[in-house]
Amino acid sequence: MSEHSESAPRTPIAVGPNTAPPPLLDKAITEAGATVADLDGAHGLIWVGGPGEFPDELPESVRWVQLPAAGVEDWFNAGIFTEHPNVQFTSAAGAFAASVAEHALMLLLAGVRYLPEHLRAGSWRQHDFFPHVDTLRGKTVTIVGAGGIGRALIPLLLPLGAHVIAVNRSGRPVTGPGIPDTVETVAAQHLGRVWPRTDHVVVAAPATPATRHLVGAAELAHLKQSSWVINVARGSLIDTDALVTALAAGAIGGAGLDVTDPEPLPDGHPLWVLPNAIVTPHDSNPPQLRLAAFADHVGENVARFREGRDLLAPVDPDRGY
Amino acid sequence: MSEHSESAPRTPIAVGPNTAPPPLLDKAITEAGATVADLDGAHGLIWVGGPGEFPDELPESVRWVQLPAAGVEDWFNAGIFTEHPNVQFTSAAGAFAASVAEHALMLLLAGVRYLPEHLRAGSWRQHDFFPHVDTLRGKTVTIVGAGGIGRALIPLLLPLGAHVIAVNRSGRPVTGPGIPDTVETVAAQHLGRVWPRTDHVVVAAPATPATRHLVGAAELAHLKQSSWVINVARGSLIDTDALVTALAAGAIGGAGLDVTDPEPLPDGHPLWVLPNAIVTPHDSNPPQLRLAAFADHVGENVARFREGRDLLAPVDPDRGY
Repeated sequence: MSEHSESAPRTPIAVGPNTAPPPLLDKAITEAGATVADLDGAHGLIWVGGPGEFPDELPESVRWVQLPAAGVEDWFNAGIFTEHPNVQFTSAAGAFAASVAEHALMLLLAGVRYLPEHLRAGSWRQHDFFPHVDTLRGKTVTIVGAGGIGRALIPLLLPLGAHVIAVNRSGRPVTGPGIPDTVETVAAQHLGRVWPRTDHVVVAAPATPATRHLVGAAELAHLKQSSWVINVARGSLIDTDALVTALAAGAIGGAGLDVTDPEPLPDGHPLWVLPNAIVTPHDSNPPQLRLAAFADHVGENVARFREGRDLLAPVDPDRGY
Repeated sequence: MSEHSESAPRTPIAVGPNTAPPPLLDKAITEAGATVADLDGAHGLIWVGGPGEFPDELPESVRWVQLPAAGVEDWFNAGIFTEHPNVQFTSAAGAFAASVAEHALMLLLAGVRYLPEHLRAGSWRQHDFFPHVDTLRGKTVTIVGAGGIGRALIPLLLPLGAHVIAVNRSGRPVTGPGIPDTVETVAAQHLGRVWPRTDHVVVAAPATPATRHLVGAAELAHLKQSSWVINVARGSLIDTDALVTALAAGAIGGAGLDVTDPEPLPDGHPLWVLPNAIVTPHDSNPPQLRLAAFADHVGENVARFREGRDLLAPVDPDRGY
């Protein structure tokens, strides 16, 4: 009962390394107007394995390969892009950012609105809570790192009436879906000027030698007693000892951490017991949400491939990302 | 050192019943280009008291009065609108909705991402948490009540990738700032058709005889094991006993309640101890945020008044709202 006529066959798309794709992927490919097919004769290949299992040779019919990771260094290092010079590779860059940005928003809102203490209350005590419930409206949220997660977070914060400062390496205005021209962007080298204006910080930058302990005692000292520090990037970007000191002293409002240093956070660590710390065990993007997000990304790229449009997240084979 | 020339004097705005306005209001009036003045000779009056203290007579110079409440039945019943037929009254309708909508979003995100259990964990246990962390992306959130709070919530949910169903009395498409034409609106009389499609519910409707126990055992039975029920309206809209039963049985994901029935919720009530219930003591719009929101509203209306533009929240003196 195909809705497609004989003259417009469905684009054949293979899935590998296993021939039976996960149902979500099958659904995404089919709903995008293509059909799941064997690799022989397929026009596209959705790869859900690692680089080690990738075929040395692809049929000439394959013109596009979708890889399952946002970062494709391993495929680059394995030489796969140069082995297949006539194939367009796409990564999953951007696909997994939305769930992490949603988690960051949740941690920030839960902190600002004093949820941890509410959950411990067990009693109404309305007037005790009144002074502690705050809002993001009119507050300045500094997002350190304007990659996929940072760019996905900006459109979530703006409708709440927050002022956003995006910090990136170049200082060039950050752009992306749902990001207006008016968003303030500051170069990382000028980050020091941003702290005194910051109400809350979300750390979403990659872990590099330059970003290690990017938030330390000096930076925390600039923040306010109401400031929340959110980390959804890597634990090493924050100086844990300095953070624990600031939290224990009530020098800042609190911290919402999906990543920690050390990680996993050992039992008995102060961050588990400080009342103004929220720790989630690096689960902002759990496996079932990753697969769903990847399926959405695949569906969008299959539709674009069929229609000859630009694909999302094309890999530059020379640069490896 | 006025920036204004002699030929453009600042519009005189009085504040009553006390002559010295709160600093936030003073700032809002001044930043909007007006000046705080005595009632004699003032063009506008910002009223922060009740109707009982309202002056029987106003100077002829006063052409606009801003009242401090979203609902102005008390002023209507006191006959104040008919006593001052030449004055344009505005209410604070809409000014206080943003904070409640932000709170509703916080409760929903905290529930969907399993924050209460995270806060009790005290240990990393990542793989125990993975299956429970969910997303609003692709989920259908039904907002029952498309007044100020409901309309303020819609633009917060859409960027998260949620599908929103707004339920109002008329079924006419809901409109407002940040609300695209594409938002699905359903008339309350057809609410029964909405439950099977609903992932999460936010109750934001007024308390009337018709909305009492709007969410009861029958409605809860339509929801999913992952569904969260959020109430930021009035406790009576949910059948508390039916909700407790559903929560205790794990028949729904959980409930986030800023309002309860009875209210205040007595110590020892099951909602205080159920692990999938979040209770905040009707503090989604605490006094200090109300004042800040009112100041924003006043600043906007002062600017509009100076420039001869339509004011926000004009009161229809015949209808009393």
